[in-house]
Amino acid sequence: MSIVVQKFGGTSVGNADKIRNVAQAAIKEHRAGNQVVVVVSAMGHTTDYLVELASDISKNPSSREMDMLLSTGEQVSISLLAMAIQEAGYDAISLIASQIGIITENVHSKARILDIKTDRLTKHLNEGKIVVAAGFQGVTMTGEITTLGRGGSDTSAVALAAALNAERCDIYTDVDGVYTTDPRIVPKATKLNEISYMEMLELASLGANVLHPRAVETAKQFNVPLRVRSSFKHDDLGTLIIGVDLMEIYKPVSGVAADLTQVRIAILKVPDAPGNAAKIFGSLAEQNVSVDMIIQSYETPDKTNDIAFTVAQSDFNKAITILEEVKSQINASKIIVDKEIAKVSIVGAGMIDRPGIASDMFQAISDAGINIKMISTSEIKISCVVEKERAHDAIKALHTKFNLDQTDVIATVAE
Amino acid sequence: MSIVVQKFGGTSVGNADKIRNVAQAAIKEHRAGNQVVVVVSAMGHTTDYLVELASDISKNPSSREMDMLLSTGEQVSISLLAMAIQEAGYDAISLIASQIGIITENVHSKARILDIKTDRLTKHLNEGKIVVAAGFQGVTMTGEITTLGRGGSDTSAVALAAALNAERCDIYTDVDGVYTTDPRIVPKATKLNEISYMEMLELASLGANVLHPRAVETAKQFNVPLRVRSSFKHDDLGTLIIGVDLMEIYKPVSGVAADLTQVRIAILKVPDAPGNAAKIFGSLAEQNVSVDMIIQSYETPDKTNDIAFTVAQSDFNKAITILEEVKSQINASKIIVDKEIAKVSIVGAGMIDRPGIASDMFQAISDAGINIKMISTSEIKISCVVEKERAHDAIKALHTKFNLDQTDVIATVAE
Repeated sequence: MSIVVQKFGGTSVGNADKIRNVAQAAIKEHRAGNQVVVVVSAMGHTTDYLVELASDISKNPSSREMDMLLSTGEQVSISLLAMAIQEAGYDAISLIASQIGIITENVHSKARILDIKTDRLTKHLNEGKIVVAAGFQGVTMTGEITTLGRGGSDTSAVALAAALNAERCDIYTDVDGVYTTDPRIVPKATKLNEISYMEMLELASLGANVLHPRAVETAKQFNVPLRVRSSFKHDDLGTLIIGVDLMEIYKPVSGVAADLTQVRIAILKVPDAPGNAAKIFGSLAEQNVSVDMIIQSYETPDKTNDIAFTVAQSDFNKAITILEEVKSQINASKIIVDKEIAKVSIVGAGMIDRPGIASDMFQAISDAGINIKMISTSEIKISCVVEKERAHDAIKALHTKFNLDQTDVIATVAE
Repeated sequence: MSIVVQKFGGTSVGNADKIRNVAQAAIKEHRAGNQVVVVVSAMGHTTDYLVELASDISKNPSSREMDMLLSTGEQVSISLLAMAIQEAGYDAISLIASQIGIITENVHSKARILDIKTDRLTKHLNEGKIVVAAGFQGVTMTGEITTLGRGGSDTSAVALAAALNAERCDIYTDVDGVYTTDPRIVPKATKLNEISYMEMLELASLGANVLHPRAVETAKQFNVPLRVRSSFKHDDLGTLIIGVDLMEIYKPVSGVAADLTQVRIAILKVPDAPGNAAKIFGSLAEQNVSVDMIIQSYETPDKTNDIAFTVAQSDFNKAITILEEVKSQINASKIIVDKEIAKVSIVGAGMIDRPGIASDMFQAISDAGINIKMISTSEIKISCVVEKERAHDAIKALHTKFNLDQTDVIATVAE
């Protein structure tokens, strides 16, 4: 008998009707002859409400007590979902992380999973029960309650699927899969049937919010087939995320993505002394500012470098405060900011063994009369920073260049 | 170093300000040189809200899942209280029942406590931490979450105090102690400094809502000194509830209570066959209807009995439905109902060795021109049912008869 793990987010369990809908999705899978584990997040705005309660008490509450507080959100939804399944006439049991044995490291608010016990899960599944498991939470070896941080419930579901050697893990969301492109830009957008872990990872880190990269990474590591599908259309199979070796076909470039949420920052005339770059990026990292697309110019005759990079808009103010401080420490001359940029990327597992892809990309952008401001590459992704107002033109040009105007291409935009 | 257990109910932790107030009460006891365990209930109307969520899903949710759901209420309040204590600059840690090891029997929604582990509590207390413990909940030997049912948080606090061999257990409430009488009837009412477990038990079961009888019984069993005191006036010592042997003084009759919430039911001409009384009271017990003051008349010449008893108004409709059914089964003639009654009681540990108390009571009521409809007695209590509209006159007459018009007498009224 195969095991299927399903995961439903907070909006999918936002009220009694929605919870009944989730119960039906679980029952459908159960009736199809599978053993079913359903992982759920806290209902709708519960987490926000709990965070607000805490902020009325303390500006900086201890993360241990925050985990104690926030973990109640999932406990409420699992009990209600178990009731809904029972009410529909099927056997169900809800389990919190400590009851399952989702063992994490002893770190609060962003713990990583170390181990998952399967004895109790397997026992209940073999009894014919649908198991409703609390996402987002874990327990340390000493019984402390932890939470997994961002992307936590997706990660719980994938980790449970890996531990149980499940046939697959279905992530139910408010979209019905991964699309070839944002329909607002390319009206021919269609849903992909398959995509590889690596491609999904690149897309996720480029701003596609369908699935948290951490969950995709865990799925990749344990080779768990992941399916992104709709909470509202249970018959729609969505998009399957699997290893490249399992994919039926893949193209050199399978998708185009644009990220309009980045800001370019350049520090001019950084003296060419050892440790200056480390100082800049070390200071940003200390304050949790993520930096992308770092480019350092060649050394100039006056022994200085220009260093440019991009940061998320949301980190911009923090970044500038830090950099003004660093600038005077290292005696650089000036900070230049460009907010009107877009990062346009092509993604494809197939580009690994095709060296001409990068130049094809630059050519296509150039042919469209668009200037490239920065370039960065990874094994399966090439990104160019262009003027923000030309981003859509760049996407369309790349679409055409790489024959993506048909189906089975990916594009996504974070705005 | 002495251990003090404090217990605060839901209204005492209803919002951030109230939680800060509770934190101050705990800190005050800590600064006085005691090790402090604070037991709290769910915030304000949280439990009602959770019950409503469940009722939207299922008319009859499983008690196992209800316990999973309801136990989150206390988990929220303990984490917030721990944060508030930390915010005030003191060390605190919140613990749910499974972390402490409050082991209960494997029964949901009304589990009894079997054992309490003290290792973890003692460890944190010795580290100088104020421990914030979740009331109302427990855990079975196999890790299932249970709740203790009515009076649960009071019972948690007393049981923790017993397990830790605490100096005392302080129950903070919205009244500042046990009063000599309801001030609406006897304006001379004053607060008692001391009362015995037994007297408090009788008063609690007569309708005084200060403390749940179950908590008082547990305190009596383990000889835990209990203090009922005000959530709002931390300097007020309230009323101490202790064993008779520890009391400084006690009178033969220490209090007068009236319960106006009972209804008298009589079943006439019950054939004198074996098992008929068992059938009547067994049927009521099966449906959880509590019966008080059972009186069976002497057998009449036609070989029938009249059986009369009282039930709570809230159980009345249920009781009548059951009794109509039983009446026809056992072939009784008629059911008579009297809703205009009051049960007036005198309570006193001192009446045990004074045989004249009962007749003094009947005489006083009779002298006031009040008819006695039913009588029942226990070791430290005598109750008479009288006409409801004469209840206050009866209380006043008994007050005077037993020299209770001074201080240090108890009276309470449930209406």
